[in-house]
Amino acid sequence: MPPLTMTSSIKNKKFILASHPEGRVLPENFMLVEENLPPLRDNEVLIRHQWLSLDPYMRGRISPAKSYAQGVKIGDTMVGATVGVVEQSQSDKFQVGDVVLSATGWQLYGIANASQIMKVDASKVPSSAFVGILGMPGITAWTGLMNICEPKSGETVVVDAASGAVGAVVGQLAKIAGCRVVGIAGGAAKCEYVVKELGFDACVDHRSKTFAQDVTDALPAGIDCLFENVGGAIFELLLSKMNAFSRIALCGTVSEYNDDPYPNKVLRSILINRIKFQGFIVSDKLETWPGIREKLTELVIAGKLKFRESIAEGLEQAPQAFVGMLAGQNFGKQLVRISN
Amino acid sequence: MPPLTMTSSIKNKKFILASHPEGRVLPENFMLVEENLPPLRDNEVLIRHQWLSLDPYMRGRISPAKSYAQGVKIGDTMVGATVGVVEQSQSDKFQVGDVVLSATGWQLYGIANASQIMKVDASKVPSSAFVGILGMPGITAWTGLMNICEPKSGETVVVDAASGAVGAVVGQLAKIAGCRVVGIAGGAAKCEYVVKELGFDACVDHRSKTFAQDVTDALPAGIDCLFENVGGAIFELLLSKMNAFSRIALCGTVSEYNDDPYPNKVLRSILINRIKFQGFIVSDKLETWPGIREKLTELVIAGKLKFRESIAEGLEQAPQAFVGMLAGQNFGKQLVRISN
Repeated sequence: MPPLTMTSSIKNKKFILASHPEGRVLPENFMLVEENLPPLRDNEVLIRHQWLSLDPYMRGRISPAKSYAQGVKIGDTMVGATVGVVEQSQSDKFQVGDVVLSATGWQLYGIANASQIMKVDASKVPSSAFVGILGMPGITAWTGLMNICEPKSGETVVVDAASGAVGAVVGQLAKIAGCRVVGIAGGAAKCEYVVKELGFDACVDHRSKTFAQDVTDALPAGIDCLFENVGGAIFELLLSKMNAFSRIALCGTVSEYNDDPYPNKVLRSILINRIKFQGFIVSDKLETWPGIREKLTELVIAGKLKFRESIAEGLEQAPQAFVGMLAGQNFGKQLVRISN
Repeated sequence: MPPLTMTSSIKNKKFILASHPEGRVLPENFMLVEENLPPLRDNEVLIRHQWLSLDPYMRGRISPAKSYAQGVKIGDTMVGATVGVVEQSQSDKFQVGDVVLSATGWQLYGIANASQIMKVDASKVPSSAFVGILGMPGITAWTGLMNICEPKSGETVVVDAASGAVGAVVGQLAKIAGCRVVGIAGGAAKCEYVVKELGFDACVDHRSKTFAQDVTDALPAGIDCLFENVGGAIFELLLSKMNAFSRIALCGTVSEYNDDPYPNKVLRSILINRIKFQGFIVSDKLETWPGIREKLTELVIAGKLKFRESIAEGLEQAPQAFVGMLAGQNFGKQLVRISN
């Protein structure tokens, strides 16, 4: 067993939420406070934080609006992923000196139960990578791109916030998958970085006055996969370039996070509820029709499926019946009887 | 071989598109014309139409705007599915008297190649069913509900235009699948029909002044599957009731079809491009993280994935760095160095 330790002699500093932001977040929404740390309980470790990750999702956590996760309340320590060094341990699983990934937030020290932290091997990659490319942002990029977009070699993949922690990984993974990759980023320096350093095929600067035309020029074959981080006007423009049977992985709408209420209800709901929203045209899969028709026929003959018809008499009535149907005046399937 | 026949003695009447509608469709957008039918060519059949199906998709076909299918041009015969009786045949595959499903449009007679029509068995179900519950509308209902929504027993399924050709089948199939089914329809008669005749659990009349409250009352457990036919304000209200991990099969937006341009660009694009649009939160599938992290680590160590960090120095800088990140001032993953 590790020796009994007294954490109460250690002064901690931490940021608590002082107020919910109204619109744009201000530094004054957070307050720095000092405290003496309590003694460790069984199975707890004391972590000296080295790195704190700041991520756009935190904007949602400090809003009083409903989101997918429990919000931070006034007076709570701000949430966040950290990497740090174990300074004291009441757990058999962690030794002083271990480097661990934790979710202990905006503070100098964190106390966590051993079940809530993970030891990382920082011998081959810098420890900060475990809250970046090997942490939530990198895994987010992989999940949205590989599991939702499912890009095929030769397809065009677009990602906005392309130089960000998520976007940069999305684009590089898409290149590895054999895709043409176009990034959207703010400013020439970020665009140059994603093309020259990360190997994207092109990048469009959304701060340029010729943005709309530049997007069109960069996408001669439209978009097959859109990894969406931004929302707002950028999303609307990209949406107009989507190809048939394309996929959108909706990861965030950072351009809208400071607006209250969120301007695009469709995006907001799809995101926070993880909705799968899919358009379909039944004639795309004519090969499925015989099998489905057979099942429906069985149900109709068995009396398990009922149907009702609205009948217009004679070809001459077709235009009026069509106009009426669009106004909801039909009741059941609209037919025109042409002959007996 | 069937005998050589002369169709030129038969007078046909048909509706052609006279003008593209501007906003609301009017009967005057169509013109009735007469013609002598040409003689049949090899492999063609002459069909006397019994039934013409009228469907909302036709509104898109007569618009000059881009859609998923080739539009009807001025002077073209209006498109539409028909059921009819073969009157003459130059094909070995069809005999005079056969009942066939065809796509020969708004006219008394249709001439079609044998490869484009299908013989149907109207001995157990009325022939009109083949353009309704056993045709495109029924197969549409099955496809969207079973293949996109994938309802599970006990879930809540909502369908709007519930008494229509598609909606009525959606609701009944969802009941067979063990779901709670709530319809949205226009007027008390349609609502009564879907509950009493079709067996829906509830129906809400969208023409009622208490519609929003009625929807809330009818959906105590929210919506797991939405089969969307209507769009507009009804869709916006239903969207606000969606549950986490819910699914929307977007089949149509009939309330918007007479508007030009389409008011909801997101819906319109998802529909005509058959986009799969999916929101996701990476923390939903924590069990996938170790495997993904391992793959990312390999790529980082191999030098195939690069990353860049924006570092704020010291805990005190966290609020300002967070505010800056939301404004796009970071360049790469935003970190705060807490200690060395």
